[in-house]
Parts: sequence; C-alpha cells; structure tokens
Amino acid sequence: MPVDIEHQLAVFKRGADELLVESELAAKLKRGKPLRIKEGFDPTRPDLHLGHTVQFNKLRQLQDLGHHIVFLIGDFTGLIGDPTGRNVTRPPLSREEIEANAKTYTDQVFLILDRAKTEVAFNSKWLLPLGSDGMIRLAARYTVARMLERDDFGKRYESGQPIAIHEFLYPLAQGYDSVALEADVELGGTDQKFNLLVGRELQRHYGQEPQCILTLPLLEGLDGVNKMSKSLDNYVGITEPANDMFGKLMSISDPLMWRYYELLSFRPQGDVAKLKRECTEGRNPRDAKVLLAQEIVTRFHSPAAAEHALAEFEARFRGGALPENMPEVTLQTAGRGIPIAQLAKQAGIVESTSEALRLIAQRGLKVDGDVVADKGLVIPAGRTVVVQSGKRKFARVVIR
Amino acid sequence: MPVDIEHQLAVFKRGADELLVESELAAKLKRGKPLRIKEGFDPTRPDLHLGHTVQFNKLRQLQDLGHHIVFLIGDFTGLIGDPTGRNVTRPPLSREEIEANAKTYTDQVFLILDRAKTEVAFNSKWLLPLGSDGMIRLAARYTVARMLERDDFGKRYESGQPIAIHEFLYPLAQGYDSVALEADVELGGTDQKFNLLVGRELQRHYGQEPQCILTLPLLEGLDGVNKMSKSLDNYVGITEPANDMFGKLMSISDPLMWRYYELLSFRPQGDVAKLKRECTEGRNPRDAKVLLAQEIVTRFHSPAAAEHALAEFEARFRGGALPENMPEVTLQTAGRGIPIAQLAKQAGIVESTSEALRLIAQRGLKVDGDVVADKGLVIPAGRTVVVQSGKRKFARVVIR
Repeated sequence: MPVDIEHQLAVFKRGADELLVESELAAKLKRGKPLRIKEGFDPTRPDLHLGHTVQFNKLRQLQDLGHHIVFLIGDFTGLIGDPTGRNVTRPPLSREEIEANAKTYTDQVFLILDRAKTEVAFNSKWLLPLGSDGMIRLAARYTVARMLERDDFGKRYESGQPIAIHEFLYPLAQGYDSVALEADVELGGTDQKFNLLVGRELQRHYGQEPQCILTLPLLEGLDGVNKMSKSLDNYVGITEPANDMFGKLMSISDPLMWRYYELLSFRPQGDVAKLKRECTEGRNPRDAKVLLAQEIVTRFHSPAAAEHALAEFEARFRGGALPENMPEVTLQTAGRGIPIAQLAKQAGIVESTSEALRLIAQRGLKVDGDVVADKGLVIPAGRTVVVQSGKRKFARVVIR
Repeated sequence: MPVDIEHQLAVFKRGADELLVESELAAKLKRGKPLRIKEGFDPTRPDLHLGHTVQFNKLRQLQDLGHHIVFLIGDFTGLIGDPTGRNVTRPPLSREEIEANAKTYTDQVFLILDRAKTEVAFNSKWLLPLGSDGMIRLAARYTVARMLERDDFGKRYESGQPIAIHEFLYPLAQGYDSVALEADVELGGTDQKFNLLVGRELQRHYGQEPQCILTLPLLEGLDGVNKMSKSLDNYVGITEPANDMFGKLMSISDPLMWRYYELLSFRPQGDVAKLKRECTEGRNPRDAKVLLAQEIVTRFHSPAAAEHALAEFEARFRGGALPENMPEVTLQTAGRGIPIAQLAKQAGIVESTSEALRLIAQRGLKVDGDVVADKGLVIPAGRTVVVQSGKRKFARVVIR
C-alpha cells in the first residue's frame, strides 16, 4: 500500500470506534480523487461543547487530507417537528428559524472546519421534493424485519414499548441523503451505526458504490464517566471564556487527559505517543495537561488567550503549587451536590466540618484555586473540582 | 328503534360479514341525514365478474336508501406501481392510463350503481399534496406493533417472510382517505377489515367521528368452493353474453344458488325466504335458479335478453329435459383439466372411455346442452359442466 494511503487510513482511524469497510476505503483512496465525506447534524441544538467537536475534529483532519466535506443540516426533520404531537418542546421550525439555527451552528463549527472548503447542505432540498409517492418508493427499499434489527428498535418492540411507524422512515430519509449527495464516506456517532449502514444499502439500490462508514465514540465529560452533556454539567462549552476552559481542562484525571488527546487534539499521533512515554518515565503529567489545555484554548480563542489562561491558572495555584500526585476522591451525592464543608471533610483534607468552616472564615480553603468566601457554597453533582486546604493539602474531587 | 332504522340496518347487514359498530351506525342513521359511504377500488383491474359486484350491490342498496356513495378510485398507488421493482407486471400508470382504466371501470360499475347519485373520487387528489413530510406525520399516527397485529403481516413476520416498510404506509394512506372524505361508513371485503379499522382510528386522531365499517364476504365461484376468479375460470364476467351468463348460473349447485341469492340478488329478503321455503316443501329448485339467472342477466343486459336466454337454454336441453335431481360429481385433476371421454366415464354416465368415444362419434354426448364434436376436448379445471349421454343420463361435474 502506498505510504500516503497508509497515512490517510491512520488519520481516518485515529480515535474512531469503527471503520467499515477498510479495504473499500483503501480502494476509494487509491483512485487519488478527493472523497465526498458527509455528516448530518440536527439544526435544533446550536450551543456546542467539546463532546460535539469530536466529530468536527475528524472532519477537519479529513479536510486537511484534501477531501471534500459536506456538512449536512438535517432540516427536513426540523420542519416536521415531533409528528406525534407528544413532545411540545419540539414544535415544527420555520424556514427562518432553521436558517438562523444553522448559522449559529456553522459559526461555531467553522472555528474548527475550514469554511472555504466546506459544503453546507440542507436535506430538505431533496427530501421535500421526494413527495408522498417518493417516500413510499423509498420505504419499499427496506424491510420491517431489518429495521427491527436496530438495537433500540428491537428492544423497544420486545418490551412492548411503542415504535411509531415514522421512526422507520427517518433512517431511510437519512440514508437517502447519502444517495442524493453521492457520499463516499459518512461519519457519525457510535449510536448512528445502523443508520449509516442503511445509507450503504440504499446507495447499492440506487446503483451507487456504497459509502464507507466511520463511527466516533461519544466523549466522556469532565467526570471521566458519563458522556459530556449540559444536563450533567460536566462539559466544556466551545464559547466559554478562555480561563474557564483552561481551568476545567486542567481538572481532568490523567487517563481522561490521554483520551482527550486522542479525540480532541490535532497533535500528530507520534508526538502524543512520545509525550505519553515521557510521562510514564517520570515527567509530570501536568505538563501534558497544560499542552492539551493550551491547544484547545488556542483553537477556540487565540494563542495569546491560551498563554494568559496558563499564567492566571498558575497564579491561582501560587506558581504551580498543584502537586503531581493528588489524591482523587469520588463522592456520591445522588445528583444533589454537596456543601463545601462536608466536601472538604469527606475528601480528607480537613478532620471535621467545623475545621472546614473555621478555615473558610480564615480564607484558607480554596476550590479550583479560588478562596471560598461563602460557608453555604454547594458544589453541584457532575463537577470535578480541586479542593485545597492551606498550602499543602489537595484533593481532586469528583461529585456524582 | 324506529321502523325505518331497523329496516335500514337490515339492508346494511344482508349478506354482510361484519358490521362495526351497529349501535354507532344506528346513532348516525337516527340523525336522518344521508350518510357518506365510501369504498375504495384499485383502478388496475377493469374487467369485472360477479364476485366484484357483491360490493357494488351493497352500495346500490344503500344508495337506494338515500345515502351518498363515494366510489373512490385508489389511483395514488396506481401512480406508484410496484415500488419494489420486483413485479414487472405492475408498472407505474400514467394519469391518462388511470383515467382510461377508471372509465372502463365505472362504465361497468354503473350497470349497478346509479351514475347520477354516485360521487367518483380519486385519492391522489389529497395523497399527493400530502408530501413526504405529510407522509411522515401520517406514519407517526400508528405503531409498528399495531401494524404487525394485522393477520397477514403478523404471520409473515413470524415466518421470516419479508415485509417491505411501504406496506405499512398503504393502510395509513387508505385510512387517510376516510379522513379526507369524512366518511361515515366504509365498505370492503373481509380481507380489508384491518385497513378499515385504521381509517376509524385515524379519523379519531383528526377529530372526526369514526366511521362504521361493513365487510362483505368474498363470493364463491361456480365450483362453490374457491373464491370467484378469472385465473380459476370459475367466474361469470359482467360483460359476458346473456346466454353464457344464464347457462353458467343454471349450472351451479342448489346451496350455492341460495348463497348467490343472498349476495347477488336485489329481491326482497322476504321473497327469497318464501322461495326457499317452497323449494324445501317440494318445488323444483330449478325454478328458483331460473329466477336468479334471469334477474342477473336482466341487470347486465335486459329483460328481453333474459327471456331469450331462458328459451335458448330450455331448447338446448330439449324443453326442460334437465332432471330435478342430477348426480353431482367432483373430479380432482390437480388443476390440469380432463379429456371429455374420461370425464364421461368418471361421471358414471358411460361404462368406459371407448363407449364415450363411440357416443361422440354418434353425436350422442353433450356438455352444457351442446353436442361434443371433438374427441380431444379437454374440460379445464375450475369449470362446472352438465354432461349428458343420450336423453336420460345426466351428471353435474365439478372439475378441480
């Protein structure tokens, strides 16, 4: 295999969950023409966090290899809303609302993708003209039994949970997008695998070479366990201030840092491997964390902002007083969060809550480098914080 | 209950398989306004036989009660053809072809229905404007599990026979017809019950009073066993010459005759009951058969044609030589049919095939009153014939 194709395949596969089918992708790459790489996005959720960027990062990497990226906005379903009428929070969107959402969306996405080299498409362009008759013809291309093979459908059917029939039409509509776009590759989350495979099959029906599919994992949030999400408050928003972004990234555990390197960093894989080796051999992992945090802050702000955030961070921890091997404690609060004095006691950095309260009165207790002034402070579940008593006692605390 | 409504309910129910829900229908009738009664027909099969007329007869009876009949031509599916592409005999039809078919269809149907009082509708009028988005909204109204409750879907799913997803959309489209037409009652064959119930449910979703449904049985063919169909050659076409129609109806068994009275005759139910009683008490059932055959020939031709057909028929059987109690024999030919000489032997009217061949040479063997001239004559499976040797030996032979 030519070196270039081997390199390209490595870029495709970095951090990916699954690539189907590698030999087909190699054959497509061998032709030497830019591939048409598609990914579809829901236009109703324009406020993005790093979890969403796993997909965009991969698209950017493939764009940098010279491929043609189609950023597909699934506005067709947005125009329909929730057709069961049960979900009042999903009303049909107007054309104007969709375009406004799409703009908010792409404005954020183009912090990662190269705007000049990205085709933005809307699937209502071909799905609306399909008509009711075209929708029936499309539905004729797939069987009920195959659709029930989709894991979640199968489970719901077995357990007697209702599946409305239109839910069978959405994967077909998404698959038809691949036909309309003549996609060579489609990207998606691991939860999208079935739908991406439908696209492969429909392309075959329509006489096209089937697309390859590449699934990427869902990113864990700052707690290292649950997937990153707003509702769990374990996220880094891509429009957050540089200092907050930096501080949150410095709070993650070492294993999670390497995971983030894989899924969020554009640093060459060889460099990351070297860094990891150095840390195994004794280098402070904090150095690697700083490099990661700076890379990400630079991406969404600027190199200067990243430098400034580092300086601020170090100042807060009094010139790098953050120890190399901090004890890590997970506190179960059943989602309720925990008052700061109890947190300090359970993290083992004070003997009692009364000692904690005394420390707070003396301005001697810090959370993420900030002095705690409020005795009643409650740290919410989902957060990971560095708590510090005096100058030497630290703990990283994950609150569940 | 007012006498009129009781009478109307009796007319609805005559020969019907099922009426759902009788109390709802009574309530609709009590309002005293003409009901909107819908039945849908496939425009691809314009050559009708008596089996098809069971439905039209009922519509005519209801029309005569003063109700509004909507003769719905399901052209939407005709425009699509077979979307799986597997059935080359069902190509999509053009608008012109559909209208030509519809005209051939209604020209035949208006031999039974009153053209002036019948609304002819085409469902593409509302199903095409529904659009791909409307089709999705419609599909959201029904669940996969409920659809798999349809007997044939359930069996096919259980046995691993494929069900294409568009097959789930057709019952919904048909149900939507009832919404668009605001139907009070829908008629159909027994095989349509599920689809008619979908219509009830969709009307509820769309805020309409649900339609009542009336299913009518499938008519047995001349063999009295299989449903009437062209492919089994056990049918009476409604455009057949009067004499053929008359002769075929005279060949049926007595039990089948009473079945035909129920499903094909417009004679008042009291009259039919009286006739049946008379036959039980000794009257020749042949008289009743003549009345039925004449009624039907009159419907599709004229009273004069019916008289003439009777005279011809009697002449063929030499002035009523057809005996009252003819032996009836069923011959199993596995669908291959049977040569005339073997038929005569197996029917017991000759001793051997050689006697049969000799009789044919002497012009002494008749089938349905006609002299058999061809020794090689094969009577096809599905036919019922009266075979006669000389002047006294007769048998009615059903060939399978």
